[in-house]
Amino acid sequence: MYNADVSGITHSAVTVDLNADLGEGVGDDEAMLGIVTSANVACGFHAGTPAELLATCRAAAAAGVRVGAQVSYPDRQGFGRRFMDIAPAELTADILYQIGALQAIAKSVGTSVTYVKPHGALYNSIVHHERQADAVIRALLELGGTLPLMGLAGSPVLHRAGDAGLPVIAEAFADRAYTPEGTLVPRTEAGAVLTDSATIARRVVDLVTSGSLTSIDGSDLRIEAESVCLHGDTPGAVRHAREVREALRRAGVSVASVPR
Amino acid sequence: MYNADVSGITHSAVTVDLNADLGEGVGDDEAMLGIVTSANVACGFHAGTPAELLATCRAAAAAGVRVGAQVSYPDRQGFGRRFMDIAPAELTADILYQIGALQAIAKSVGTSVTYVKPHGALYNSIVHHERQADAVIRALLELGGTLPLMGLAGSPVLHRAGDAGLPVIAEAFADRAYTPEGTLVPRTEAGAVLTDSATIARRVVDLVTSGSLTSIDGSDLRIEAESVCLHGDTPGAVRHAREVREALRRAGVSVASVPR
Amino acid sequence: MYNADVSGITHSAVTVDLNADLGEGVGDDEAMLGIVTSANVACGFHAGTPAELLATCRAAAAAGVRVGAQVSYPDRQGFGRRFMDIAPAELTADILYQIGALQAIAKSVGTSVTYVKPHGALYNSIVHHERQADAVIRALLELGGTLPLMGLAGSPVLHRAGDAGLPVIAEAFADRAYTPEGTLVPRTEAGAVLTDSATIARRVVDLVTSGSLTSIDGSDLRIEAESVCLHGDTPGAVRHAREVREALRRAGVSVASVPR
Amino acid sequence: MYNADVSGITHSAVTVDLNADLGEGVGDDEAMLGIVTSANVACGFHAGTPAELLATCRAAAAAGVRVGAQVSYPDRQGFGRRFMDIAPAELTADILYQIGALQAIAKSVGTSVTYVKPHGALYNSIVHHERQADAVIRALLELGGTLPLMGLAGSPVLHRAGDAGLPVIAEAFADRAYTPEGTLVPRTEAGAVLTDSATIARRVVDLVTSGSLTSIDGSDLRIEAESVCLHGDTPGAVRHAREVREALRRAGVSVASVPR
Repeated sequence: MYNADVSGITHSAVTVDLNADLGEGVGDDEAMLGIVTSANVACGFHAGTPAELLATCRAAAAAGVRVGAQVSYPDRQGFGRRFMDIAPAELTADILYQIGALQAIAKSVGTSVTYVKPHGALYNSIVHHERQADAVIRALLELGGTLPLMGLAGSPVLHRAGDAGLPVIAEAFADRAYTPEGTLVPRTEAGAVLTDSATIARRVVDLVTSGSLTSIDGSDLRIEAESVCLHGDTPGAVRHAREVREALRRAGVSVASVPR
Repeated sequence: MYNADVSGITHSAVTVDLNADLGEGVGDDEAMLGIVTSANVACGFHAGTPAELLATCRAAAAAGVRVGAQVSYPDRQGFGRRFMDIAPAELTADILYQIGALQAIAKSVGTSVTYVKPHGALYNSIVHHERQADAVIRALLELGGTLPLMGLAGSPVLHRAGDAGLPVIAEAFADRAYTPEGTLVPRTEAGAVLTDSATIARRVVDLVTSGSLTSIDGSDLRIEAESVCLHGDTPGAVRHAREVREALRRAGVSVASVPR
Repeated sequence: MYNADVSGITHSAVTVDLNADLGEGVGDDEAMLGIVTSANVACGFHAGTPAELLATCRAAAAAGVRVGAQVSYPDRQGFGRRFMDIAPAELTADILYQIGALQAIAKSVGTSVTYVKPHGALYNSIVHHERQADAVIRALLELGGTLPLMGLAGSPVLHRAGDAGLPVIAEAFADRAYTPEGTLVPRTEAGAVLTDSATIARRVVDLVTSGSLTSIDGSDLRIEAESVCLHGDTPGAVRHAREVREALRRAGVSVASVPR
Repeated sequence: MYNADVSGITHSAVTVDLNADLGEGVGDDEAMLGIVTSANVACGFHAGTPAELLATCRAAAAAGVRVGAQVSYPDRQGFGRRFMDIAPAELTADILYQIGALQAIAKSVGTSVTYVKPHGALYNSIVHHERQADAVIRALLELGGTLPLMGLAGSPVLHRAGDAGLPVIAEAFADRAYTPEGTLVPRTEAGAVLTDSATIARRVVDLVTSGSLTSIDGSDLRIEAESVCLHGDTPGAVRHAREVREALRRAGVSVASVPR
């Protein structure tokens, strides 16, 4: 777990989780499974067939990578990237359905779902859309309240989840620029996505070892993140991921998923 | 559990389960939940949205009716009624996905999935299609081998499942004519579906109390069935179901789901 | 075409079109086809399989009822009732796809698509969501600009469509209460849906013969509508529809679709 | 049109069409559009969203490549590769729906659907499954009987279509081995798929200029094909395609779609 007040003397005590979206039929899953410690697995609502989910879970299990359920709006056509104005009760049922489906698939190959990460438009909307956020949180509570919700470090939805008694996993993004307010610069703006591996790796090391990240206007942000998201489907994704992992090793940071 | 050698003296010891398909958006679910003891709940592959699954599970739980997963080929357009030549590994994943989805939904409303009943074309094809039968059986084994498979009494798939170590629930059909070989008369043939409530009720009582059923050519069949399927979506479905339940009461037969 | 300034002397010159949603698997389509002159046929995105579309088009053709394409967001799970934040270019493609699909189906049974009516959330959102409205209009223009857009009488989207050169069909709702501003009272509010057949029929006659409708606060609205929507799936739908049709006959109003 | 008895003297009179599957989200569509003369465009039942269909049609139109509707069983999960036992009337409706959808999309970007090619399991099943073959043929007849059906050269379905009065396009496969009976060697067998560009190119030239193809056992096959299918999604696909096109040029064969 990321610990903000760790001193420079004992860097080796610092640990971070690396997560990536896998099983979406794009990117080099096999290579990414050698680098990350958490695999966000699509549950069929934005991507993935049951057989693909199973193959991804099996590969993750073989690589010793934990599995998370990447839940989405029911929008295959739009890859889950479009806001849907779904009533909370319906959204809760959608989330339950997806988690359960992946749980059975995971169980069949000897692993399990260990966290839940909303995907695409749902990830973004629950940051500020309280009724939908509560619908997601409610689904997790009804399953026993033990599965942590992975979300944007510092975002209100994680506080809401925490207040409701849910464990959470705060994540930061390796290849995305941040606004001075600590939110992600929208992809439609210039400079939103970082493309230089060395820069990406240095930012991740700074973030993990010092809790500090430079925003797009040069100001310093304090971000406590337990996990860092590595995109698996962008050009250079595997190269970026390897560089991040190697830079963390050199900085004495352990890469491991957080046991809960 | 149905016991073929029970004597006429102790009719009160005889128990039978009554099951029906619910939550498919057709028929009077509320009325049926007052009559049956097992609800076959669609899992989204032939019918049902997550919110509909949840509503059906909640209603079943409130009525004290156990929930079974009615798994199907992935064929919404065809309501699961068309054979699909799916490879076994893909079919196993489809079954796992559906069961898991319904398990999470059921858990959220305080109940659980207690058995699995294939639907439509899948129900019929696994009677003789060994590779697909094994794919379904494998899914249940991989989930721990505790969920029983509900299928046609006397059919090879139940023997296969039993040989593989799975518990099974043999069912008979209240409103269907049987061939002398103990299979169902295809719906396309005359007389395949019985429509007189009194006849249906009498056949069910005979079947449950004596293990005997008259086939379409008048010959006597021996059928051991622990559950009887009542169709919920045909004209007169609720009336037939009420008459069956009342006739069983008069005959001293308990109606209850089989604890396992 | 509805003509607001027709005098009481020549009632026989007044004509109105009656439309209803058919082929959604709910309601009594056969009865409605004997009453309405326009059938809004689902195109598969919120309801309907190709075989169901074909059956509905065939029945409409046999009844001499014209066919309209009821286009929707791609949301089967939500029956097209949930707003989706779809980019205009994608929405245009969705609309084109649905219209074309129904055109081929209609052609195969000797009829044709004669108008386009957005369904559910799309119907409501394009009233005010200009980018999505323009996306729908653009689809119709790209198909040649001859298919009229059916929409809420008096709504901005019809003006936009008219300005773009599209023919339009203004419709009013028989069984819905109107706000003083001429919009529909939301279904969530008391009194939003009228349930008395006689009241519904009287309102339709007033609307058609005088262009006048009483809003929920008692004020008088001027509404020019060429078509009146009769819901086919509510309790009493067929009864309401018969009473409307009969009341129009007594008032000397012709019921016919508008030739274009 | 391919003419088997053309002499060596007038090679320049020989013309062949080259077709490939595009818009399925795999392979390098842009490169292939510079090589082929016919683009088989998925219609949403096995792959493709409306926006993707539109983008592919637009790119094909810009490249001067004609568009064909690649119709499929309704099986997104299985990419249309699994036989489905669909009743003929339902299959006819499925085919109509897909063709119409693509026709409207194509029209919106200034092109049109000029032929129909079944995809995957449907392509294979109609070779021998007469009721499904007739269902496809019926769809084309009901649309006016002017759209040609593209299918395996020499297969019974093309004869059936021709007997029914439909135009047909006989195609051969560039990179597939043939049995001595003129059918394709199943992919599951060794040697089924050719991988050497030079061999593939030479076979295509032989086929087009002499109507002759060597089967897997070395015997000579006579095959009259008007179009040759180049796979766009296999490793080396673009390289194979370029080599075929160049070899045809050197042999004096024109590459063009067949006007009808």
